[in-house]
Amino acid sequence: MIKIAVIGYGVVGSGTVEVFYKNLDSIEKKIGDKIDIKYILDLRDFTGTPYDEKFIKTFDPIINDDEISIVAEVIGGIEPAYRYVKSLLEAGKSVVTSNKELVAEKGAELLRIARDKKVNFFFEASVGGGIPIIRPLHHCLSANEINEIAGILNGTTNFILTKMINEGMAFNDALALAQKLGYAERDPSADIEGYDACRKICILASLAFGKHIYPKDVHIEGISSITAEDVQYCDDFGGRIKLIGWASKRDDKAIVMVCPAFISDFSQLASVNDVFNAILVRGDATGDVMFYGKGAGKLPTASAVVADIIMAAKMSDSSKSLYWEDSEQAFVLDRKLLDSKFYLRLICKNKVEALKQAEELWGSLKLLHREGEADNEVAFVTESINEYKFEQDCALILKSAEIKGKIRVLDY
Amino acid sequence: MIKIAVIGYGVVGSGTVEVFYKNLDSIEKKIGDKIDIKYILDLRDFTGTPYDEKFIKTFDPIINDDEISIVAEVIGGIEPAYRYVKSLLEAGKSVVTSNKELVAEKGAELLRIARDKKVNFFFEASVGGGIPIIRPLHHCLSANEINEIAGILNGTTNFILTKMINEGMAFNDALALAQKLGYAERDPSADIEGYDACRKICILASLAFGKHIYPKDVHIEGISSITAEDVQYCDDFGGRIKLIGWASKRDDKAIVMVCPAFISDFSQLASVNDVFNAILVRGDATGDVMFYGKGAGKLPTASAVVADIIMAAKMSDSSKSLYWEDSEQAFVLDRKLLDSKFYLRLICKNKVEALKQAEELWGSLKLLHREGEADNEVAFVTESINEYKFEQDCALILKSAEIKGKIRVLDY
Repeated sequence: MIKIAVIGYGVVGSGTVEVFYKNLDSIEKKIGDKIDIKYILDLRDFTGTPYDEKFIKTFDPIINDDEISIVAEVIGGIEPAYRYVKSLLEAGKSVVTSNKELVAEKGAELLRIARDKKVNFFFEASVGGGIPIIRPLHHCLSANEINEIAGILNGTTNFILTKMINEGMAFNDALALAQKLGYAERDPSADIEGYDACRKICILASLAFGKHIYPKDVHIEGISSITAEDVQYCDDFGGRIKLIGWASKRDDKAIVMVCPAFISDFSQLASVNDVFNAILVRGDATGDVMFYGKGAGKLPTASAVVADIIMAAKMSDSSKSLYWEDSEQAFVLDRKLLDSKFYLRLICKNKVEALKQAEELWGSLKLLHREGEADNEVAFVTESINEYKFEQDCALILKSAEIKGKIRVLDY
Repeated sequence: MIKIAVIGYGVVGSGTVEVFYKNLDSIEKKIGDKIDIKYILDLRDFTGTPYDEKFIKTFDPIINDDEISIVAEVIGGIEPAYRYVKSLLEAGKSVVTSNKELVAEKGAELLRIARDKKVNFFFEASVGGGIPIIRPLHHCLSANEINEIAGILNGTTNFILTKMINEGMAFNDALALAQKLGYAERDPSADIEGYDACRKICILASLAFGKHIYPKDVHIEGISSITAEDVQYCDDFGGRIKLIGWASKRDDKAIVMVCPAFISDFSQLASVNDVFNAILVRGDATGDVMFYGKGAGKLPTASAVVADIIMAAKMSDSSKSLYWEDSEQAFVLDRKLLDSKFYLRLICKNKVEALKQAEELWGSLKLLHREGEADNEVAFVTESINEYKFEQDCALILKSAEIKGKIRVLDY
């Protein structure tokens, strides 16, 4: 009989307990052993659940109970999750978590402790909710060198952008709707400013490239400055605006960023709508592979936590943990080393002058149009250009025009 | 040092050797041990390769060499693959294979031998080429009851249908193009009649439902009768015609079939074009999850074989093989128990009469139109109707009209 504990009885925690007991028969068949939840840790009072007698309010019974071999940490945030998880691993217990912030900030350290202690530290639920991505990346693509990852990693922003694109809503209206429907929090900044997507691309890139990539090293642009006009021009371009978490290997280094981007309608990523997530992985042998599904939600995320519990239970006799190394300072390169295509929307003092200057700076331009375009308005996509030079160029163009929209164009 | 053998040096076999040596450093790092290919078995002569000294022409050295712990079988077909694989597993060697025919016909028996002998039998490459699907299905979705799988599992037919849809090509022209480009064989029947897709949905359904589903129990319809007119009507319907491998759990039983179907443009499956494959998995907790990528090709398939080799090498101290049971006769139900919506295209003796009769038989019809529609032509989608009754009804309608097109409408 395997005894486990669940730390946190919020949305994911209560879902984990629900999925666990709902499928207990088939779970035990898969493990080949009996398994039960012995403790559920939450500071709040819960009564009237079928699990009332399992609730505890302090961490000590869990860490001190030799019967407990696996713990699911589903409270989120760095503290007290970090303290709990670290001491659990050090005590020789396996841990599974849905906590993307914890893994993105402390993954290398926790993975090292897990390896030293020969226990498992799994976090399938930390990226993409119920979409299997961590384990496929690690195992099934292990015969590939992964060169690039591009993901729609945040359902809230994808919902907002979908409403702006399909229904012509303004950003603020779409955000308000997302909040009304419970897709966005009252303070939506972690989503719309790209921090949530950043944590997820950090986890994926760390796993793919084998070295920890910290959120602080990642260039982040959110979607709050995207306008209805940008959406219209992207439509004329033949694409859709998506918030992309992006990571690319450059020899021994990596470039990682989160930014809105024009994505061609021919790309599989373009048709990922509403709160759905998708992660495209580019391997040297396998080519482009994409994983798609609900990136959040109680039961999808819980099912990923429970799958990790099953895996930890099956692996109790062997430590086959995921692993990546901590990284030196300069593993992540400045994204200004990139060459990118850009969409620009300008309001010109003199349209002819501005276009002439733009062509001198950025070569052949692909001009875009929209219904209701102003007389002094011009929009285009540049050729591929070094980002550092492009920023300098943008300062030059300000003499003849105001920049109203600036979005990368990514090729997938 | 782990020693392995590769049986077959055709497209997948030579790709396996290529991917293996190209990424050997990172493979050994992932395994935590040295690994090398000791034998490559092929009846043909190969000279001038970097592996000339590894080639052998008989099976005996492999089965008799105690150093060999893992063998990749990549010849395809039932014989001699079945004989080889069976004796390798019985000799206590792990086997990985890309051979979908072998797994679909003999999977239950081979998995039982692998379990008895505590070795691994892996076959990630047998479905979806380089798309990770077997392991994610088994592991990451293990906390879900899988209720349904719908997949675009054959790149050749998807290429042909894409050409018919996007470029208005006739079926025969699209097939000829596929043959010219090397996507279709000279005898294309395994692809266009749905047998290849059938083997793959059998493997996926066996894994998802835990019991072997044999190809002979699966209802199969191919795409050779799809016309340009059907494609036009599907466009008016707001969808695309795809060849779908489909499996659904019904209590303790399953319904499995392969058939062309109208798929709504809102579905992620609709945007899967050309030779790409995609597999949609519907779990009770995770909802719809989709896996997308190149379903065939030398390097994608080879990368899946090599990933299985890595997994088998890592798992050498434990048998965590995939598993499903053999099944009794009646595990697969007659698909005529299904309720389905159908698209029908009729050439009528009397259009008013035929429509009146169709409405009496199938309730409210969604009428469809196309450019150049003939005066005596009518096309529509029925309400959901029992398939057994529908076939009887179709015999009745023949009095007033000839059936020129009949395709299921699937909801995703």
